[in-house]
Amino acid sequence: MYTINYLREFAQNLFSKIGCSSTNAAIIADVLIRAELRGIPSHGLLRIPDYIMLYETGRINPAPRVNIVHETPSTAVVDGDKAFGMIAAKKSMQIAIEKASSVGTGWVSTRNSNHFGIAGYYAMMALEHDMIGIVMTNANPLVAPTFSVSKFLGTNPIAVAIPASKQPSFVADFATTPIARGKLEIFSKKGLSVPFGYVQDKEGNPVNDPDILKKGGAMLTLGGDYEHGSHKGYCLSSIVDIFSAILSGANFGPFVPPSVGYLPVLKNSPGLGTGHFFGAMRIDAFQPAESFKNYMDTWIETFRNAKPSDNYEKVLIPGDPERELEIINAEKGIALLPSVQNEIRTIAEKYKISFA
Amino acid sequence: MYTINYLREFAQNLFSKIGCSSTNAAIIADVLIRAELRGIPSHGLLRIPDYIMLYETGRINPAPRVNIVHETPSTAVVDGDKAFGMIAAKKSMQIAIEKASSVGTGWVSTRNSNHFGIAGYYAMMALEHDMIGIVMTNANPLVAPTFSVSKFLGTNPIAVAIPASKQPSFVADFATTPIARGKLEIFSKKGLSVPFGYVQDKEGNPVNDPDILKKGGAMLTLGGDYEHGSHKGYCLSSIVDIFSAILSGANFGPFVPPSVGYLPVLKNSPGLGTGHFFGAMRIDAFQPAESFKNYMDTWIETFRNAKPSDNYEKVLIPGDPERELEIINAEKGIALLPSVQNEIRTIAEKYKISFA
Repeated sequence: MYTINYLREFAQNLFSKIGCSSTNAAIIADVLIRAELRGIPSHGLLRIPDYIMLYETGRINPAPRVNIVHETPSTAVVDGDKAFGMIAAKKSMQIAIEKASSVGTGWVSTRNSNHFGIAGYYAMMALEHDMIGIVMTNANPLVAPTFSVSKFLGTNPIAVAIPASKQPSFVADFATTPIARGKLEIFSKKGLSVPFGYVQDKEGNPVNDPDILKKGGAMLTLGGDYEHGSHKGYCLSSIVDIFSAILSGANFGPFVPPSVGYLPVLKNSPGLGTGHFFGAMRIDAFQPAESFKNYMDTWIETFRNAKPSDNYEKVLIPGDPERELEIINAEKGIALLPSVQNEIRTIAEKYKISFA
Repeated sequence: MYTINYLREFAQNLFSKIGCSSTNAAIIADVLIRAELRGIPSHGLLRIPDYIMLYETGRINPAPRVNIVHETPSTAVVDGDKAFGMIAAKKSMQIAIEKASSVGTGWVSTRNSNHFGIAGYYAMMALEHDMIGIVMTNANPLVAPTFSVSKFLGTNPIAVAIPASKQPSFVADFATTPIARGKLEIFSKKGLSVPFGYVQDKEGNPVNDPDILKKGGAMLTLGGDYEHGSHKGYCLSSIVDIFSAILSGANFGPFVPPSVGYLPVLKNSPGLGTGHFFGAMRIDAFQPAESFKNYMDTWIETFRNAKPSDNYEKVLIPGDPERELEIINAEKGIALLPSVQNEIRTIAEKYKISFA
């Protein structure tokens, strides 16, 4: 078990060592730690070896100039200059927030970026400004459109954070697939089959094999099969892809570069890096902020008091589970898997940083 | 079989007769006809008896003053003055488009409205302006949040229209449930059970009874059950509800008034009428319009050329099926169910309009 401070300091040191400014190293560390705290270790320190390999293969620029390439009062396109995704994303969300401060809403599409960790981190940046935050990103392709066997879409998440008054904020952060990819690995390691509706084989038949991606299979969009609305998940995932890549000039769908260093980048890709999309809406651009937040409290209290089904204790509000974990983990500390510890230890030795 | 012109003229006459201006009657007729053309008869002329009853019970104002109650350069809250939803929605989308023309994007949350027909109609208004259109609406509650038996959400659709160049536009328009409510009735009329994942009984157990809503059951959110990501559908449906109602001051979730005249309105509702949300983003607020549309063509062509699964001929782009039907139906005309013809005939007699 590690303390938060220990892991944060280690990550900052590591990213500083490879050439990130101390400010940028602190941002990257903060996003990774926040994922661990919120119970999303798949987007936490486990990613460090991949990020370092992406840096070592020259796909990530540790000292980028993230800049606006086009803008209007409420929009911007940002070029990430091959930054760590966290750096491009935080700057882009700040720009969206500034634009919202001045004209009510701000919308930024970002290209030439990389994997940015948890989408919810950036959506939640809007909350302290009494704004609604919206974040999307495309991701390397693992998911088949409805009726297809081609892996043309990523798990393309959407995050939306909405402020309330006495109640904690509403924070939704979800992939547009039934499950995250990491869950398949967990089933596989346990020797279990997965429920039907998660994956298909290379001919497009429903299967329950958690290792099917390695055999030419694909993940399915939210909804699972056509009968259960997978075409709606396909629409959602496509919208995320288009807002992130076609608006910005990033790579779309099948051309999104892999977020791991050991997979090759396509030679002829049509855009620049990975794409993200950010939105900020000032709540007082619609209602007086206090009225909105009080009405949002009423919404949350109403749904909290929905009658639970027989097998469940209570109805949750989006963001409840992560918020509860964040409090527990901040106190308890973070456990890393032995394999993750070993990989990080190897990197630490290489870059001459101590890691217990 | 009726011609488009005949049905359009009939609908215009009817809505004029109950006090709509000729402009407004033409708008209502156009939205209903468009639904028929696009193969969505559940939102077409079948709705006329409900709309007329809502007018007769005083819940719809045929001569409304739809107006902006608050605004910033990129946002507005619109009060629909109890208008037919189509009137409030078209005006609101026009405002979003005007704001996008001036500052890049426009976002409107609308209260005190009613059922507005197909969401895609308003999203597609953005296309001719080289803008992306986004539309959401809440709807009367039939759907249970994950882990709950309370019918607290509507089928809360999302529509997104994105312009391309040589390719037809991308038009997604989908409920945030696996199926539309009307589909349950079709299963019921055929004496068939529905697939698991559509509905639950009043204790929250999965069932395959298409009539379960009448027995205290509820529809499920996109994803179906928790294992298949229903909590993501719950997030989506909640976001639609909050953007439509909490931003505007409309009724949310369980308080959304029924879109049929024979069900009572709640006495103590916290907001005004039904709520909608509209967005318009100028594509040249991000990229030169031609570059964007050419890149969008590349996106569409890439996905059109995805490899189909063994059981399917081709991969579709969102909007393909409706566009194809629109061409066929414009030529062929519209068939109305005998029961719908009879109901409309009764209304026509009452309002002294001819209907064959």
